[in-house]
Amino acid sequence: MTVSKAAPIITKLSRPSRKEAGEAATESPALQLGELSEHLGYALKRAQLKIFEDFLRCVAPLQLTPAQFSVLMLLEKNPGRNQTEIANTLGILRPNFVAMLDSLESRDLCARSRSTNDRRSHILVLTDKGRSVLARAKKLVAAKHEARLNELLGPANRAALLSMLATIAQEF
Amino acid sequence: MTVSKAAPIITKLSRPSRKEAGEAATESPALQLGELSEHLGYALKRAQLKIFEDFLRCVAPLQLTPAQFSVLMLLEKNPGRNQTEIANTLGILRPNFVAMLDSLESRDLCARSRSTNDRRSHILVLTDKGRSVLARAKKLVAAKHEARLNELLGPANRAALLSMLATIAQEF
Repeated sequence: MTVSKAAPIITKLSRPSRKEAGEAATESPALQLGELSEHLGYALKRAQLKIFEDFLRCVAPLQLTPAQFSVLMLLEKNPGRNQTEIANTLGILRPNFVAMLDSLESRDLCARSRSTNDRRSHILVLTDKGRSVLARAKKLVAAKHEARLNELLGPANRAALLSMLATIAQEF
Repeated sequence: MTVSKAAPIITKLSRPSRKEAGEAATESPALQLGELSEHLGYALKRAQLKIFEDFLRCVAPLQLTPAQFSVLMLLEKNPGRNQTEIANTLGILRPNFVAMLDSLESRDLCARSRSTNDRRSHILVLTDKGRSVLARAKKLVAAKHEARLNELLGPANRAALLSMLATIAQEF
């Protein structure tokens, strides 16, 4: 088991139980994941789905998905940048991004305007309502979502996890 | 910066550069991620996308997606279990899973048969071709994909990452 090598590094985590999602099937024993549980891609996807589910629950009063939250965060930090730059930075495909902007704009959370330099390009800005919704979302995410993750992992492990994920995203 | 707290734990990783995907926009400086880079959900999603891209490249000769690979792995380890159990264990929604099975079956990689206990239920098994394709896929994944991840992170960090992701998936 590769996982057991982690013992000297992880100080605050209990050994995860082997309980799987298959427990929903009441009449049969849970399936064995076998080697699959040692694959980083699989483990990443399962953790990411769990975190996205919790994010959606925490931000439910504001009806924001994780991707919409990312867009609003980026618009706040980078006002007046164009649609392509925002989509590229977040790695969102153009058709998906256009649909997302349509939805955000229809809720008056952001606004598109033609660039004066390049008429084919759309400049994006947060509206006042977008800024206020984002401020509330940040509070909910910090107080409910990130705080619980911090509690589960411990601050040092959480920081180590973030650093490794950034390394994978940027250098793999 | 929360990430800097990781310094005593991460021993083999260089500090990631702040280079972002936005560099594709040649005329303007890269966008600033700001607080977004401190959100675990965002970091997980970016790392997961990068790992899935690399997986697809490594297994390209066999034309398997990460999800298809997971299904074949699970069928090998748990022969004769039904469709619902496999889908639930992997967290794949039923319509998506049915489409995936259609594709795997049309390529003669797995076979469905009616359960003798419950005629509404489909039992899944790997075919001989499925077993052989999976064996080749495992070799490619181990030699190219997981080996490079191991090199990037170091074995201890890789194990720590896997353990934290399992904790999130099972306990968050």
